[in-house]
Amino acid sequence: MTVKHALPVTRDQDFAAWYQAVITEADMAEESGVRGCMVIRPWGWGIWERMQRLLDDRIKATGHENCYFPLFIPLSYFEKEAEHVEGFAKEMAVVTHHRLVPDGKGGLMPDPEAKLEEPLVVRPTSEMVIGTAFARWIQSWRDLPVLINQWANVVRWEMRTRMFLRTAEFLWQEGHTAHATAEEAREETLKMLEVYRSFAEKAMALHVIAGEKPENERFPGAVETWSIEAMMADGKALQAGTSHYLGQNFAQAQNIRFQSADGGHELVHTTSWGVSTRMIGALIMVHGDDDGLRVPPRVAPWQVVIVPLLRDNDDDAAVIAYARELQAELARETALGEPVRALLDLKPVKPATKRWSWVKKGVPLIVEVGPRDVAAGNVSVIRRDRLYQASGKLDAAIGPRAAFVEGVGAALEQVQHALHEESVANLRANVAPASDWSAVEKHFADGAGTPGWLDVAWSRPTGAALDRVVERLKALKLTIRNAPAGQTGHPGDACIFTGEPAVERVLIGRAY
Amino acid sequence: MTVKHALPVTRDQDFAAWYQAVITEADMAEESGVRGCMVIRPWGWGIWERMQRLLDDRIKATGHENCYFPLFIPLSYFEKEAEHVEGFAKEMAVVTHHRLVPDGKGGLMPDPEAKLEEPLVVRPTSEMVIGTAFARWIQSWRDLPVLINQWANVVRWEMRTRMFLRTAEFLWQEGHTAHATAEEAREETLKMLEVYRSFAEKAMALHVIAGEKPENERFPGAVETWSIEAMMADGKALQAGTSHYLGQNFAQAQNIRFQSADGGHELVHTTSWGVSTRMIGALIMVHGDDDGLRVPPRVAPWQVVIVPLLRDNDDDAAVIAYARELQAELARETALGEPVRALLDLKPVKPATKRWSWVKKGVPLIVEVGPRDVAAGNVSVIRRDRLYQASGKLDAAIGPRAAFVEGVGAALEQVQHALHEESVANLRANVAPASDWSAVEKHFADGAGTPGWLDVAWSRPTGAALDRVVERLKALKLTIRNAPAGQTGHPGDACIFTGEPAVERVLIGRAY
Repeated sequence: MTVKHALPVTRDQDFAAWYQAVITEADMAEESGVRGCMVIRPWGWGIWERMQRLLDDRIKATGHENCYFPLFIPLSYFEKEAEHVEGFAKEMAVVTHHRLVPDGKGGLMPDPEAKLEEPLVVRPTSEMVIGTAFARWIQSWRDLPVLINQWANVVRWEMRTRMFLRTAEFLWQEGHTAHATAEEAREETLKMLEVYRSFAEKAMALHVIAGEKPENERFPGAVETWSIEAMMADGKALQAGTSHYLGQNFAQAQNIRFQSADGGHELVHTTSWGVSTRMIGALIMVHGDDDGLRVPPRVAPWQVVIVPLLRDNDDDAAVIAYARELQAELARETALGEPVRALLDLKPVKPATKRWSWVKKGVPLIVEVGPRDVAAGNVSVIRRDRLYQASGKLDAAIGPRAAFVEGVGAALEQVQHALHEESVANLRANVAPASDWSAVEKHFADGAGTPGWLDVAWSRPTGAALDRVVERLKALKLTIRNAPAGQTGHPGDACIFTGEPAVERVLIGRAY
Repeated sequence: MTVKHALPVTRDQDFAAWYQAVITEADMAEESGVRGCMVIRPWGWGIWERMQRLLDDRIKATGHENCYFPLFIPLSYFEKEAEHVEGFAKEMAVVTHHRLVPDGKGGLMPDPEAKLEEPLVVRPTSEMVIGTAFARWIQSWRDLPVLINQWANVVRWEMRTRMFLRTAEFLWQEGHTAHATAEEAREETLKMLEVYRSFAEKAMALHVIAGEKPENERFPGAVETWSIEAMMADGKALQAGTSHYLGQNFAQAQNIRFQSADGGHELVHTTSWGVSTRMIGALIMVHGDDDGLRVPPRVAPWQVVIVPLLRDNDDDAAVIAYARELQAELARETALGEPVRALLDLKPVKPATKRWSWVKKGVPLIVEVGPRDVAAGNVSVIRRDRLYQASGKLDAAIGPRAAFVEGVGAALEQVQHALHEESVANLRANVAPASDWSAVEKHFADGAGTPGWLDVAWSRPTGAALDRVVERLKALKLTIRNAPAGQTGHPGDACIFTGEPAVERVLIGRAY
């Protein structure tokens, strides 16, 4: 039986249009009228707040403290680290004036008298301003390590923007640390990569591959860049978080030195790592379906929404009273280690409209109660992650209210688990080994459906040899995603690009 | 006996220098090197995080949802509301370019090829961008009220800055709401004023006076502006939060209309309200003393800090084990409705240095444990709000660990209460009535110590009459703070400024 889905377009019909439809129909975000910037609406923001809470807990539990650094960075700061500015100079918002005056035509213009002596850049990332603080804070080995994080907005001037995935302004956390030794800084880099991996898997129910980026994909100024890569429903990759070992590059540029225990003056080793609102794009493209978003219970602003079936008659008062009792009972239950977040939706909207609006928003459990349920002590429950019966009929399970309340924690854990399992299965089903370049070309030929990623032998070429690889990949719109961490098997004999002896395996694919 | 205090300067010696010393010695914030912008360090940020959490809970509990709007606002948006732009045009950061290029002299400059067609203003407040969203969202009376809030950074180009009190970039929450009727919007304005008042009193232990600002102190574009005013230790006022009834001014400028139940098209009535990092300045100037900050337990990042008296000898292991047990026991206790936040400070620093660093940071309870305490099952407790005995000796109370743990909730409640009581007493002691202008002049004459505020009869003059009042006040560096809400007594016969019949009492004073 064909199901009539809630969205105007399905993933198969037009994935890009479907992505936009989820965002619109779930009231997550919208165009703001300001180029490249979006308005994040309450449902999208609620998910981000949950993500912030859970990731912040993990960042603090690993010994980091939050701070806040300026939005503006003087131009001269960027002149210090050549590679870094090379990577960012093309796309920064520059403040040049600090006042507006009437333009004589009824409008306003920047006041020529109020031109800044030194332009200010709206931070695209904060290495350059945090490094100057590190240089003030760090004198001796006793001051190390410095382990800090900030939650902030950043701006990168993007020519082609896409909600959550690529916007001029976006929100993120950026961790910055300084250490006495390279070993300790590398350990930190990998520790935060693991925090991100675990957060993606456990909180977001996103299966990801953690690994090291190839040289050409490194953060500007980094010695090593590591990432977590998630696979979207269309087989493309999305880099969902990065952790950088910056070596002594930024320490050198900003003169961040410490007196070591034996009296010498040494440069620190720094790291930085970030996760952004971009990860919400991954959430949509991994867990979304043709009826809208499906939010994993851990990050759902509301885990259970109660829709009372009101009919503007005498039964309504009893239905509302029953629904309120249910909400109070649910709020006393625990799911996934926290009190259950249950909403009673009393908006003046028809019950069917309400139900479908919560389906599109992806609330894990939708509970409908009407006069018959009140009489029988029942509830009717829709589990958002498996909306339909095999017949194509909506799968609403009617059962005793007490049993539902008692089992709500287990039910939410099941939804969390099921979404994660789907993500694991989708990634596994769409990664295949390829043993030579022609297999790659064939695999990624036009019209090949959902090609996913290929897993290939790699010799870690550098310089011109690496440039040639990047060019070949680019012709097929491919990139190397990462070299998965913890590889123990034989990498294969020869690199499929260079023919040199392989040293590891890398994943290649198309990406957002 | 004279006490040797922990700060290099006392409030009596130099209040402004003392304020700066608290911020520095408590590691709250520091100059960033970027004009007008500060770095908020972990202790300052931790207090802001607690404030955010507690205020956000109250904002949500009153039915508001959080969203996020763009950092940048196109210049043309500001041209719509004349009074609003008049109030803000003098102090805005303007983005004019979106790329940097080498300047040919080894540095960088804004790329002349990348000049924006329309300059973007870094938001000084978000009425103008949120209003455009309201115009999209609101069609019918069914869409009302719209009740939203955002936590964001904003920029106002200040020529003279002072940490927390007046910085170019600052952090705040801004609530924005739209309603069908003036009555409902006014009710919202006062509801949020009450949320702020209650938050200041209960969470921050700051006694404040809630009331309406005079016409000349209104937010640009507002019909009514209400504030909460706190009294600093030097007798000056600090406006700690504002709530504005905007009437239909912004709705008119941005064409925010709705179809009413009877089919007409009407303009909405809007409100906005905000509290910022400025309130941390009030926290310092109300609760700080000559030994540093005193943080009320509800907003203290750590409520109890355990300092183990380590001596690099064989006793250390037992002391650390004892301190860890104590920390675990404290974490299981509840204070002020939340689990107790207890830190064990194991940094490699001398115990006395540690103790004084936590005194300066203002942790409510500092607990020291040494080998003798371990042997006796004791703890030594310093209550930060009353640091010294009458003799001038540090007041450390030694007692059984079990009793301390059992009583920790009550002790923290006492500290919260005591700080609030001090704030109430300080405000009450420093407000006096004045019956004529000469009494005002005498009261605020040079060298008059801590003049506090005067409470005077007021006829609500407008226009030129109001301008004359403002001028007279300005000559004495005074402003009208507000007309306290809920006045029921007789306002007095004649306004001390105009001689006209008084309609209410207002508070006048010097202010930050």
